[in-house]
Amino acid sequence: MSRNIALTIQYNGARFDGWQRQGNTDRTIQSRLEAVLSRMTGSPVELHGSGRTDAGVHAAAQVANFHTDCNLPCPDIMRYVNQYLPRDIAVTEVREAAPRFHARLSATGKRYRYRCRTSPVPDVFARPFVWELGVGLDVGEMRRAAALLTGRHDFAAFCGRRIKKSTVRDLRSIEITESGGEVVLDFEGDGFLYHMVRILAGTLVEVGLGERCADDMPALLAGRDRSRCGVLAPAEGLCLMEVTYD
Amino acid sequence: MSRNIALTIQYNGARFDGWQRQGNTDRTIQSRLEAVLSRMTGSPVELHGSGRTDAGVHAAAQVANFHTDCNLPCPDIMRYVNQYLPRDIAVTEVREAAPRFHARLSATGKRYRYRCRTSPVPDVFARPFVWELGVGLDVGEMRRAAALLTGRHDFAAFCGRRIKKSTVRDLRSIEITESGGEVVLDFEGDGFLYHMVRILAGTLVEVGLGERCADDMPALLAGRDRSRCGVLAPAEGLCLMEVTYD
Repeated sequence: MSRNIALTIQYNGARFDGWQRQGNTDRTIQSRLEAVLSRMTGSPVELHGSGRTDAGVHAAAQVANFHTDCNLPCPDIMRYVNQYLPRDIAVTEVREAAPRFHARLSATGKRYRYRCRTSPVPDVFARPFVWELGVGLDVGEMRRAAALLTGRHDFAAFCGRRIKKSTVRDLRSIEITESGGEVVLDFEGDGFLYHMVRILAGTLVEVGLGERCADDMPALLAGRDRSRCGVLAPAEGLCLMEVTYD
Repeated sequence: MSRNIALTIQYNGARFDGWQRQGNTDRTIQSRLEAVLSRMTGSPVELHGSGRTDAGVHAAAQVANFHTDCNLPCPDIMRYVNQYLPRDIAVTEVREAAPRFHARLSATGKRYRYRCRTSPVPDVFARPFVWELGVGLDVGEMRRAAALLTGRHDFAAFCGRRIKKSTVRDLRSIEITESGGEVVLDFEGDGFLYHMVRILAGTLVEVGLGERCADDMPALLAGRDRSRCGVLAPAEGLCLMEVTYD
């Protein structure tokens, strides 16, 4: 097929069973997009996403590509898909990609944001996008723990599923900022294992609550034991912010 | 009854038939709050809101008060109601008010915000809170029109319903700002007629689109004819930001 089209996609994950197509449910982002693209091109479209996002997780800029012979210009593709997508999914960019570009295989990094609401005062507008803790966190201790988790490590302990492939990842940075009743955790790395960001967030929040010690992070990594790490932080607090390519 | 309690209330109006209780539907903000407060106090509670908001309109800080003999401290009231309210309504402040305080009669002013999305690129996170125009607006012309609408005028032309009482209002300011793909209109005044903000927004947007002229505003006011003004802007773009008291 003559064209390789890359899409940037935004979604509110609340109503969906995650990114990846599953059997014949149409409650996934991928299946909704493929349905609209297939209708547009007149033949079945297979989308390659940069990676899965769990049920309930949001994206500000997921990336996916597909091959097609359809000759509709990019702006027309964008207009078409946004007209037929549900209100909680949108395509924010459509561009011509190099023939060998692959949204997952070509990715060099990803950035995820995890938002915790620490204020005891609720915020109905933020609520669908935060973990509502309602209590303060010791951000200094969380930063100390984050520094010990940053770098190239075996993150098997922070992976929600036993996998045979390598569990070594380069976690380039964890930035923790506090403002407007929230503590926001930004994770950047070359790639993330299944549930990795949410287990990291859960563990760091437990440090912030004083339930575990920052100094224990190296032992957690070395132990490679999921059961010794923190809880899986709720999906709704997580958002895929950016996928980077060279 | 011995206490007069004032509440500050936040809501995403999307799912509701507006603020005001109507017969026996429980799809209004007032009826949802009254149900929870009545359960808490053990006797029927009647809330006095600062004013109605239309179906679909949001509030960052609606104010309402009620009289009660219940002796629960304010922080406990806040915790109780937020536990039982649906996720799209929250009480953000509970305070003891003076015996004669009345959320509507004591109000000295209100501030409303109307958000227009002008970027052709959709934003799924902003979408529930904006009028999606998808085209640019001439903000200079809108500001010129806004200046001609500001002040103490008879706003009968901008009222969605014939009323016998005075239609004179003091529209203290209209501020129009542009950022992040949006044009935001902030309206401040001593009070607003039924649909007034949305008709003002609809008219100003038509000026911004070049469909009508800023200079026509005085004639619109003088004509007192609703049919000569602009469209009723969609409810979802509107948010009650603040109610002021002396």
